Amino acid sequence: MPLFPASVVIREVGLRDGLQSIETILPTPQKIEWIADAYAAGQREIEVGSFVPARLLPQLADTAELVAYAKTLPGLVVSVLVPNLKGAERAIESQADVLLVPLSASRAHSLANLRKTPDEVVAEVARIRAARDAAGSKTLIEGGIGTAFGCTIQGAVEPREVLRCMQALLDAGADRVSLADTVGYANPAAVRDLFEKARRIAGDRLWCGHFHDTRGLALANVYAALGTGIARFDATLAGIGGCPHAPGASGNASSEDLAFMLADMGIETGIDIERLLALRAKVAQWLVNETLHGTLWLAGLPKTFPARSIRTLTL
Amino acid sequence: MPLFPASVVIREVGLRDGLQSIETILPTPQKIEWIADAYAAGQREIEVGSFVPARLLPQLADTAELVAYAKTLPGLVVSVLVPNLKGAERAIESQADVLLVPLSASRAHSLANLRKTPDEVVAEVARIRAARDAAGSKTLIEGGIGTAFGCTIQGAVEPREVLRCMQALLDAGADRVSLADTVGYANPAAVRDLFEKARRIAGDRLWCGHFHDTRGLALANVYAALGTGIARFDATLAGIGGCPHAPGASGNASSEDLAFMLADMGIETGIDIERLLALRAKVAQWLVNETLHGTLWLAGLPKTFPARSIRTLTL
Repeated sequence: MPLFPASVVIREVGLRDGLQSIETILPTPQKIEWIADAYAAGQREIEVGSFVPARLLPQLADTAELVAYAKTLPGLVVSVLVPNLKGAERAIESQADVLLVPLSASRAHSLANLRKTPDEVVAEVARIRAARDAAGSKTLIEGGIGTAFGCTIQGAVEPREVLRCMQALLDAGADRVSLADTVGYANPAAVRDLFEKARRIAGDRLWCGHFHDTRGLALANVYAALGTGIARFDATLAGIGGCPHAPGASGNASSEDLAFMLADMGIETGIDIERLLALRAKVAQWLVNETLHGTLWLAGLPKTFPARSIRTLTL
Repeated sequence: MPLFPASVVIREVGLRDGLQSIETILPTPQKIEWIADAYAAGQREIEVGSFVPARLLPQLADTAELVAYAKTLPGLVVSVLVPNLKGAERAIESQADVLLVPLSASRAHSLANLRKTPDEVVAEVARIRAARDAAGSKTLIEGGIGTAFGCTIQGAVEPREVLRCMQALLDAGADRVSLADTVGYANPAAVRDLFEKARRIAGDRLWCGHFHDTRGLALANVYAALGTGIARFDATLAGIGGCPHAPGASGNASSEDLAFMLADMGIETGIDIERLLALRAKVAQWLVNETLHGTLWLAGLPKTFPARSIRTLTL
């Protein structure tokens, strides 16, 4: 029998990875309503935005306001993405619980997307760690290694290089590291292989899996990562998103489909799926001009849900 | 490391499970072109139709003609579905390589779909075996156990009952047995659990997995079954299909997405994916009024394909 985690956290990244990739700009009150409803549906980790210059991503310019609101919700872990020290200083000031620094293991993608080499990002993480410690802040630093399974610009990304970047991030002071299939190139065998190797390097500091459904494999990849003990996954409501610097990539793992898969497997997520589907319907109205993804909203929950638990199956 | 089969067969069931579930009636010459192109793309097992009364499924009335054509292609394993002894006699006469007798482990689904109880289907398989042996035929008898993971009519289907039906089919003379998630209720943990138990009963006679993508889990379920040693999966080009007697069910595993996942994992399928995508484009033109599925046709193959092989990954 495979051993799966008894419970899994789905980190909602739709407000960041989702909204930064689409045309529609959601007004702040709608974003706050989204966060409130996600919280009411049981989601306890939300990446609410990015601390990047507003001229680059105007749709995320209200991130500080969203952190302030999200911090009022008891027990909610509030994440933000930051590309550099300046963003990290704003994140620390906002008292976000987690700041995620993206690093692209693909040098070509890193230069195109972040205008830095992977090692320059590592050096920035060391500066962020120093700033965090100097401020006496409790904000955790997560190094998010993207294009970990390949890159639309460079092509192959060697696992060896991904793991080297991971070790460097930890050495530079990242509290946690995560692996992201930024452009939808992963397959479940590659996921299993890389997450097993990453576990040997990072231990419990290996934190999160981030998969895109570009070629329909997001949930298969989650299942493969689950088997290596990963218990935290990024996902976006209605699967919105993709990387604006990775042509052809589209669609994160869908939060509601992932929540269903996990719950149906008998894994606790704390999420009320009916409520999450209601939120999806609401957000779909706000994003009426966007292409949305996912299957559960259309097919509905099975008649057997949630009575069956794999743990109780016996012959 | 998980052990996967070195090679996997994708049985194309689009001409049967696909075409019986949609409105468009494909003319025989187009079906023959589909079979020829699938063969040229490397597919070596095709379910070409059903031997059922033409008044019930007029779109499959040309099955005998399709078997005759398919039998001219060297090395192609030609399957047909038969609901009863009469259909089996036609299959044997046609010299099909495999005749698949569907049995629904859900009693309610069985009565609605086949107008027989599961045990009446088992008794029919015994009669089919006797007829096959009396004819000195080499046609193999496959018992396909549907609604193995639940049913839209009845709800839960106990694994115990699925396994009882499997044993009964083998006792009645089925050469092989398969498990089908007819209505898209399976999850990868349930798949792993049931296929492991089925293996203990049927050994190498456990033949094939048949998954629907109704809730986005078809490929995750294939991956779970792979881990139990299953090396043969049903799929349909463009994911067409579903069960006409199971309201809400729609979409088989897509042949092209499945072929991609397996090949990208380093598992041999014999399929030329570019050719399969070209066939998909052709069939999509024929089925222009139908809802098609799948993701690879839209996203395209990764830049890394097929250079990466998981088998060669080392740290």
